[in-house]
Amino acid sequence: MALLDQPVLILGVGGVGRALVRHIVAARARHAARNRLRLRVVGLVDSRSAVLDQQGFSDEALLAFVACKEQGLPLASENPHWRVADLPARTIVVDTTASEATVPILLEAKARGLGVVLANKLPLAGPLAWWDALADERSRWETTCGAALPVISTLDTLLNSGDDVLRIEGALSGTLGFLAAQLEQGAPFGAAVREAKTKGYTEPDPRQDLSGLDAARKALILARMLGYRLELRDVAVEALYPAEMDALSVEQFLDAVDTLDEPMRARAAALTREGQTLRYVATIGDGCVRVGLVGVSRESTLGRVHTSDSVVVFHTRDFSDNPLTISGRGAGQAVTASGVLGDIVSLAQALC
Amino acid sequence: MALLDQPVLILGVGGVGRALVRHIVAARARHAARNRLRLRVVGLVDSRSAVLDQQGFSDEALLAFVACKEQGLPLASENPHWRVADLPARTIVVDTTASEATVPILLEAKARGLGVVLANKLPLAGPLAWWDALADERSRWETTCGAALPVISTLDTLLNSGDDVLRIEGALSGTLGFLAAQLEQGAPFGAAVREAKTKGYTEPDPRQDLSGLDAARKALILARMLGYRLELRDVAVEALYPAEMDALSVEQFLDAVDTLDEPMRARAAALTREGQTLRYVATIGDGCVRVGLVGVSRESTLGRVHTSDSVVVFHTRDFSDNPLTISGRGAGQAVTASGVLGDIVSLAQALC
Repeated sequence: MALLDQPVLILGVGGVGRALVRHIVAARARHAARNRLRLRVVGLVDSRSAVLDQQGFSDEALLAFVACKEQGLPLASENPHWRVADLPARTIVVDTTASEATVPILLEAKARGLGVVLANKLPLAGPLAWWDALADERSRWETTCGAALPVISTLDTLLNSGDDVLRIEGALSGTLGFLAAQLEQGAPFGAAVREAKTKGYTEPDPRQDLSGLDAARKALILARMLGYRLELRDVAVEALYPAEMDALSVEQFLDAVDTLDEPMRARAAALTREGQTLRYVATIGDGCVRVGLVGVSRESTLGRVHTSDSVVVFHTRDFSDNPLTISGRGAGQAVTASGVLGDIVSLAQALC
Repeated sequence: MALLDQPVLILGVGGVGRALVRHIVAARARHAARNRLRLRVVGLVDSRSAVLDQQGFSDEALLAFVACKEQGLPLASENPHWRVADLPARTIVVDTTASEATVPILLEAKARGLGVVLANKLPLAGPLAWWDALADERSRWETTCGAALPVISTLDTLLNSGDDVLRIEGALSGTLGFLAAQLEQGAPFGAAVREAKTKGYTEPDPRQDLSGLDAARKALILARMLGYRLELRDVAVEALYPAEMDALSVEQFLDAVDTLDEPMRARAAALTREGQTLRYVATIGDGCVRVGLVGVSRESTLGRVHTSDSVVVFHTRDFSDNPLTISGRGAGQAVTASGVLGDIVSLAQALC
C-alpha cells in the first residue's frame, strides 16, 4: 500500500528542532510500517535563515542542515523569501521555537487550513484571540505542558468522554521542583538558585524560572482547554523573588539573591509546619488558576512523586478517590522532540 | 456547521454498556460543541435479544432500554435477526461484553471496514490471528488495560514518536493489589480472599482473579502493541492458588483456601525480606511477559503508588531516570464507560 505523504515545515532549529529532524530520519522505517506514513520535510526556518523545497529534502541534506546549525552556522547563505501561501496543501507547520515571532505564520497557516503542531507555549498562552484561532482539532500541542508526558491528550480525551473534570493540580516546573526540594531540606535559597543555574536547570536569567510565569503559562493552557476564558494576567502567580529585583542585571540579581534566604526559609517553614512536603504547584479549578508554593501531605498523590518528576493530577467525577495521575520526566530537548513527533503523526492521521 | 453523524452499535448491555448509553445521552451538548459530533445509536445487542434501527433511537428510547435491562428484562420480546451487512456505512461497533462470542461479529465488521471499539479484552488477547485482524488504526481499545487510564493511547503515541520503549511494568489488577497489600500487612491469605469477595472486588469465582489470567491478558495486549508475537500461553503467570484446586466448586475452594495461608505467608515474607513492599506486577520487556508477585522498593515508582490504584510505568530511552507513569482508578463500570466514549469520539474523528 502506498505511504501517506505528509509535508512538514519546521520553525526553529534549536535543540528541540534539531532533535526532531534526527527523530524523523531515524523513525522512517517505523512510520512506514506502523503508520503507512512518510514525513516530507519541506522546510527548516529559523530567525536568521531558511531552507525550503516543496519536493522535500533528502535525509542526508536534513542531517547536514542540523550539523551545520550545531556548529553555529546559518542554514543558508541568505534568508530566502518564503510565504505560507507557497507551502504544499496539508502541510503541518511545527513550531519548536520559544518566541511570539512565529504567531503571524501560525495564524496564516490556520487560515489556510494547514495543520499546526506547537512545542512553543507562548502562542497558546497569549491573548485569547490567538488561542481561539490556534487551538482546534487541526492542531496539537502536547509538549507545551510537561514535554512528552501525555497531559494534553489525556485532558482532551477526558473532555470527550462522559467524565467531568473537577480540578487539575500539577507540579510542572523541574526547576522550581528542585528549588522546593532544596528549601525543604534547609538549603539557603540563594545557594540553591546558584546551584540550579550551575547545573543548567535554569534559564541564563534564573528570574525567568523564579517568576513562575512558565508554570503559569502551562496552567493557563490547561485552563483554557477546560473552557476558562482567562488571560495570563488572570492567573495568580507566586514569584520566588520580589518585583523590585526585576530592575537588576543577572549578575546583580545573583549577588543579591541571598537576601531572600531568610524570608524564603520562613515561608517554607510555615507551609510545611504539619510535616508536609513543599511543592511548587499549579491548581486549576472553579474557574481560577493559581501557581505557587504549597505544602502537601507526603501521602498525597502530589507528595508521593519524586521532585525531579513533573506530575499532573486530574480530579474528575469518575477519578475521585483515585485521581488520574501522570508523572515522569517533564522537560528536556530529546523527550520534547519525541512528543512533537508523536503529535505530527497524530495530526497527519487526522488530516488525511 | 452541520454535525458529523456517527452511527454506533453497542454489543453488551451489562453495567458498562448501560453506563455508556447514559454517558452518550448526557454528553450530547458537549459533543456537539467540542467535536461537532452526534452519536446515532443504531442498535443495542446482548446475548439474549437485540434492538436495531438504522435511523437511530431517540434518547428516550435508549434510556428506556437501559432501565428495562436494569430490571432484568430482555431488550425486545424476541431476538430479531440482524446482520453486520445491514449496519450503516461507517458504523462503529462497540464491544462492552466480556465474551469471545462477539468475535465473529467484530471480524465481519472489520472486513466491512467498520470501526471497532473494544472494552472486551478477550478478542485482543485471543489467537494472534484475531489480534492481526482487529488491532489497526480503525480500532480503539483503551479500556482493555486499566479502564479509562490512558495506557493504550500513551503506548501508541510512544511508538509513533522518536522514543524507544524498553520495558513496561504494571500493577493492573485492583483485586490482586488488594490481596498483596493484605498479605504484606500479615493478614492470612484465606481471610483476605474471602474479604475481597465480600467487598465485591472479585469475580463470583475468586479463582478467575487469583489465576492472574486477567492481568496476563492486559500484559499480552501491551506486549503485542510492542510487536511481540506471543500467545497467552507464552505469558509466564503466577497463579495465587495451585492448579489442583481448579477441580473444586467455588464453595469447596473458599473452604479450602485457608490451606494456602502458610505457603502464601512464606512467599510474601521471602519477597519482602529487604523491607520491600509487595505488588502483583506484569513486566513486559526483552520479548518476554511475566505476571506475578514481586517485592519492590518503597522508593520505586511502583512502590510509591497506593495499592488501590492501577499503575503502568513506561521505561523508555527518553524516559529513563524518570519513567513515564500513569496511575489512578483502573477499574469500575462508570469509568470504563467514560473511556469507551472517549474511544468512540477519537475513532469517529479518525474515520471521518
